[in-house]
Amino acid sequence: MRRATVRGLLVGRFQPFHSGHLGVVRAIRAGRPDDALLLGIGSAQESYTWENPFTAGERFEMIVRAVDDAALERIEIVPLADIHQHALWVRHLEGLLPPIDRVYTNNALTALLFERAGYEVARPALRNRARFEGRQIRARLASDRGWKELVPRPVARYLETIDAPARLALLAPNVRRGTDGPRR
Amino acid sequence: MRRATVRGLLVGRFQPFHSGHLGVVRAIRAGRPDDALLLGIGSAQESYTWENPFTAGERFEMIVRAVDDAALERIEIVPLADIHQHALWVRHLEGLLPPIDRVYTNNALTALLFERAGYEVARPALRNRARFEGRQIRARLASDRGWKELVPRPVARYLETIDAPARLALLAPNVRRGTDGPRR
Amino acid sequence: MRRATVRGLLVGRFQPFHSGHLGVVRAIRAGRPDDALLLGIGSAQESYTWENPFTAGERFEMIVRAVDDAALERIEIVPLADIHQHALWVRHLEGLLPPIDRVYTNNALTALLFERAGYEVARPALRNRARFEGRQIRARLASDRGWKELVPRPVARYLETIDAPARLALLAPNVRRGTDGPRR
Amino acid sequence: MRRATVRGLLVGRFQPFHSGHLGVVRAIRAGRPDDALLLGIGSAQESYTWENPFTAGERFEMIVRAVDDAALERIEIVPLADIHQHALWVRHLEGLLPPIDRVYTNNALTALLFERAGYEVARPALRNRARFEGRQIRARLASDRGWKELVPRPVARYLETIDAPARLALLAPNVRRGTDGPRR
Amino acid sequence: MRRATVRGLLVGRFQPFHSGHLGVVRAIRAGRPDDALLLGIGSAQESYTWENPFTAGERFEMIVRAVDDAALERIEIVPLADIHQHALWVRHLEGLLPPIDRVYTNNALTALLFERAGYEVARPALRNRARFEGRQIRARLASDRGWKELVPRPVARYLETIDAPARLALLAPNVRRGTDGPRR
Amino acid sequence: MRRATVRGLLVGRFQPFHSGHLGVVRAIRAGRPDDALLLGIGSAQESYTWENPFTAGERFEMIVRAVDDAALERIEIVPLADIHQHALWVRHLEGLLPPIDRVYTNNALTALLFERAGYEVARPALRNRARFEGRQIRARLASDRGWKELVPRPVARYLETIDAPARLALLAPNVRRGTDGPRR
Repeated sequence: MRRATVRGLLVGRFQPFHSGHLGVVRAIRAGRPDDALLLGIGSAQESYTWENPFTAGERFEMIVRAVDDAALERIEIVPLADIHQHALWVRHLEGLLPPIDRVYTNNALTALLFERAGYEVARPALRNRARFEGRQIRARLASDRGWKELVPRPVARYLETIDAPARLALLAPNVRRGTDGPRR
Repeated sequence: MRRATVRGLLVGRFQPFHSGHLGVVRAIRAGRPDDALLLGIGSAQESYTWENPFTAGERFEMIVRAVDDAALERIEIVPLADIHQHALWVRHLEGLLPPIDRVYTNNALTALLFERAGYEVARPALRNRARFEGRQIRARLASDRGWKELVPRPVARYLETIDAPARLALLAPNVRRGTDGPRR
Repeated sequence: MRRATVRGLLVGRFQPFHSGHLGVVRAIRAGRPDDALLLGIGSAQESYTWENPFTAGERFEMIVRAVDDAALERIEIVPLADIHQHALWVRHLEGLLPPIDRVYTNNALTALLFERAGYEVARPALRNRARFEGRQIRARLASDRGWKELVPRPVARYLETIDAPARLALLAPNVRRGTDGPRR
Repeated sequence: MRRATVRGLLVGRFQPFHSGHLGVVRAIRAGRPDDALLLGIGSAQESYTWENPFTAGERFEMIVRAVDDAALERIEIVPLADIHQHALWVRHLEGLLPPIDRVYTNNALTALLFERAGYEVARPALRNRARFEGRQIRARLASDRGWKELVPRPVARYLETIDAPARLALLAPNVRRGTDGPRR
Repeated sequence: MRRATVRGLLVGRFQPFHSGHLGVVRAIRAGRPDDALLLGIGSAQESYTWENPFTAGERFEMIVRAVDDAALERIEIVPLADIHQHALWVRHLEGLLPPIDRVYTNNALTALLFERAGYEVARPALRNRARFEGRQIRARLASDRGWKELVPRPVARYLETIDAPARLALLAPNVRRGTDGPRR
Repeated sequence: MRRATVRGLLVGRFQPFHSGHLGVVRAIRAGRPDDALLLGIGSAQESYTWENPFTAGERFEMIVRAVDDAALERIEIVPLADIHQHALWVRHLEGLLPPIDRVYTNNALTALLFERAGYEVARPALRNRARFEGRQIRARLASDRGWKELVPRPVARYLETIDAPARLALLAPNVRRGTDGPRR
């Protein structure tokens, strides 16, 4: 039987969803306009840490706003909690998601794990990688300087709504925080 | 700031996604054509049991095929693993999903938990509830009789592809199974 | 070195904390007025089910109100989440709680597990066991009839505050609930 | 490269390890004397329940004693905790165990899951199934009557050492146990 | 209805419970003598690591001895296991504890999470913070020099009873430990 | 009753199983030829990380091949997943494994935890510790230089079969990997 939908998968933590991510999504959609593209929000269970400041719900909302604004279609978004067992990760995703035909990643481990499981893996071209890098953008958010030009405009507005710079300033690793908080 | 999207939430286990589910989705979409509707696939971690025979990925695929065939738009689909703690459930979903404005449910406990958390809860009208009932449809699948007319046509084709009747026959509670299998 | 405190342990689910429980606590306190008595709230992670309708926090509050009203002293209260591994249960409690010198229980399995680990186990006399039984009191709550005389007065007032009868009515096993709620 | 060892897998809960199990192991060893046979102790995390009265360690010890006494060789024994996700179970075992060439089972679900993953599944002939059935033997243990002839002699001696009849009597479902014990 | 008890919450890991902690507790009790004060032992599941050398039970015992010796009343002590999901942490505590009216913390993240959930957060004045700092005291314990004057006298005696200096010496990060131990 | 088997336990992560490990096993077997020796594969749930590159199944296979080649007998191999709670670790192993009479370790924490639980702990003599060190061997694997002489010959062949040098090169900490992979 014919499969209803051909579907690509792009997994990221999207902390935050920035213009580099949007560029990759745009290029994948342009290259294969008939396919669906599933964006998996990795480490979905994490939030309020320096590495993962935003909840999966907040990241979901960023992506919805950015792809709507860019009029990108056939995009699916799914939060993916970590399972902390690399050898099972691909099988875990297979049980959670509809069939995937193609994986997009520049992460060597992700590529290895999917290739070992028999998937075709494509390396999307990254525009200006050094500039669009999550950790770098989080550092700029923490000092509230020079971050707005690195994220899609609707994401910038949303990050202001939730007062992201204050949150990042508080979570930045160099901040003295005391010893009685929730632990990770 | 204006919210980018008004969004409803309908949670179900969709074991399988049947014509009663599709009718509810159609009615919600018709009543509020500008809203997004998020379908949460509950008990996403479960599969290959009598109560939950299909993986979340298989259920995701059923829904995609049914809503595409019905030309329903603005539908989002998300697998939701159980957290087994009712008092935290709504808060858990809030961390995982984009903002929800309205919850659709006929389940009294779901309604109670969302109302306690301040949500507006709507009870969608069910067409022919007795007929479209998951457990009943699973029983028919197990004997491979009279189930096709209870699910959307693309779901029926998909269930045949994955040989659902054989799986259900094997999982049915009256079947003698021996004692050395994986346990739940 | 002399131990600072001699301490007994009484574990229960306290769904709800009823007058039978209070009678046992009173008798233990009277028999050993110099000891501390630690009340462990079992299955602390559970709530909003028929077996465990109240959160650990609600049960904690019931106990605080009842023992304050009864002017009972030297009572400690600790929520205890299940670990689902009987063979480790006593060792798990030892890591979580201050030293325990005596265990009070009428549960044969609890007694066995503690005795295997070298503890002295006492069987507290139960006054009118048939009358003061959690399941029975939950059933009366569900129909809002004849429950107030079975719980301490401050617990009765608290249960009314949180509208316990409505919650129990909703969770009672005979209630038709639909299929799309959070699962356990 | 040549594989160092050809290996079969037999998974059971072995609650307890009885003469029916020993007969199956003996037959597999006789049929393929050059292969290793790995015995997986399922539901290894469970103990002190009616379904799973013995710890994995106790079951391990029963098997060691029985196979030593029967002079069976090339037996490997591994405790396997449940993962509660059927769709991932085979992949989970693959990550935990050395390569398996053949699976022995009379459990239809186990057979389905391994066949779906590409394994050869053999159905071992069971001698006198009705007689050698775990639940039945546990019931006999609970009343301490007629169980010794159903388990290998060294297992019978071991079960007496750990006073298994008293444990089973206490765990049997018809026993009134009170409400304050550890919960499952 | 009037609440039975007004209650403050102070969360700490108390590794160990030192004189700085005791000073804060004393000040809170003095400022609001009619309120109960709940001390939450954070990271309760941790022990035998450099960051968390003492079990929750040992920390519970330290606190009991120190507050009894200081004749502080209306103190409640509860072990709190981490849930590793910051966005749910406050809701998790709400389900586990009786109602909290006021949170005491100098931890910026704790303050943020409670304020987001609508709580009043007070910053207790710390006497001599540089001196009373858990990590610093653990380092002194590891070399068994100059730690006794930094903890309440009954805690010092207890730490000697359990031979805390030897344990800390063994867990200190600079110690060569080999590769075959339990992992974290 | 006489115990059927006297049994030693040696726990390691065996990433990979190298000639230093084999030397220890050989020495233990030679010193107590009548005892069984159980090799516990620690951190069994881990794989595809720099610290734990090989699955438990791969490590199991390495050990089987090495001990078969060395004609070592009475060896048992068991994967042991971490439980992340040091205070419970020994009790957890007791529930999972047959009775242990003697523990072999050079890890100070392992020794402390077992001695606290009443075990006899022996420190096996290590031949040339600096040379046979897991981290060092993993670094050599990552650059595919000078590793073969540090592992038993059958392990070297196996590591080539699974292309271990390529995997280690990819997992090495100095490698730039991008941000969209599975997280730990």
